[in-house]
Amino acid sequence: MSNSTLMEKLNWRYATKKMDPSKAVPQEKVDQIVETIRMAPSSSGTQPFELFVITNPEIRADIRKVGWDQTPITEGSHLLVFAAWDNYSADRIDAVTAQMTEARGELPLLNQYYEKLKATYLPRDAQTNHDHAARQAYIALGFAMAAAAELDVDCCPMEGFDAAKVDEILGLKEKGLRSVVLLPLGYRQDGADWLLPMKKVRKAKEAMVTEIA
Amino acid sequence: MSNSTLMEKLNWRYATKKMDPSKAVPQEKVDQIVETIRMAPSSSGTQPFELFVITNPEIRADIRKVGWDQTPITEGSHLLVFAAWDNYSADRIDAVTAQMTEARGELPLLNQYYEKLKATYLPRDAQTNHDHAARQAYIALGFAMAAAAELDVDCCPMEGFDAAKVDEILGLKEKGLRSVVLLPLGYRQDGADWLLPMKKVRKAKEAMVTEIA
Repeated sequence: MSNSTLMEKLNWRYATKKMDPSKAVPQEKVDQIVETIRMAPSSSGTQPFELFVITNPEIRADIRKVGWDQTPITEGSHLLVFAAWDNYSADRIDAVTAQMTEARGELPLLNQYYEKLKATYLPRDAQTNHDHAARQAYIALGFAMAAAAELDVDCCPMEGFDAAKVDEILGLKEKGLRSVVLLPLGYRQDGADWLLPMKKVRKAKEAMVTEIA
Repeated sequence: MSNSTLMEKLNWRYATKKMDPSKAVPQEKVDQIVETIRMAPSSSGTQPFELFVITNPEIRADIRKVGWDQTPITEGSHLLVFAAWDNYSADRIDAVTAQMTEARGELPLLNQYYEKLKATYLPRDAQTNHDHAARQAYIALGFAMAAAAELDVDCCPMEGFDAAKVDEILGLKEKGLRSVVLLPLGYRQDGADWLLPMKKVRKAKEAMVTEIA
């Protein structure tokens, strides 16, 4: 059996530390990556995060300043910022239920399900709920990186930034959001990246996978 | 431009609530999904989680009992359990550094990087570190779901289970692991799943994506 596209691309992709500022990712490829993020599954279908797609040079320069001066933030053509809900709320979950009802019709089981979800989520502290929301954003991050690889687009996932400062730059607090991870998109600059010639390192299957038959 | 394989499959995949117990996922497809998980990127390359691939019927029955009796746990052919590190430790990070050094040679910058990482991670509380590790597992979960879709394999991500009980069943605590998400693999049972005929619901792009140009 031949490998599928994604599997073939997993050795090609790498965390691109040096991007070529002269090459922009075509908008149609960015649109497909964004669409993958939008279609990614999430716990109970809440999609508890928002995505910011930033091309504005000044704002990216500001983010780079609070992002350990990592060059892909400005040398890529598009900066994706994943911002997870700061908390679950009745309004946010009711909006999910309303959209489900609009698409699928009135279903008593569906309403019961989301009432139960509110009873579980709402008493929890904000940090626990934000952490849960962030995990859902990371599923979408995985989808985005897989899609980028399939489309021969480079990217570099980044957790190394001052999240409070990025929130300030993008006005996220007022929106009930907290930035959790950055993903610059662009193209690798051959010959300029110390990481590119390095051997890709992953644990051996035996070191991380246990089969229980 | 034609869409890539992953993008085409995003409307086909869904959280498969009813799997056909008579159909097993071929081992070569399972192997490819596992390989995708192994190759998924993680923060600083630590791959801070392990994967359990369970076919054993008794153990899956035990997990189903503490997993809200969700049928895909036993009706799929393979149950993947993602278990994140309970904490970062000097030993765990030193093992990552050692493997990098073995693959790439002795690099002073690499050693400095991981010494700095230890200085950041080790003073943090275990829950913060576990949450960070869990997010990395969710990137791999995203990769696994994308790979499954490409291979026409159904799956159903599940957070609804008693994690402490699953940890007990699999002896995870002794290994410094905590189960974070389950992913049964199998094949949809047409006509038997209430969710399959339902319209897929996702937020509109305008509701979750902001472009800043």
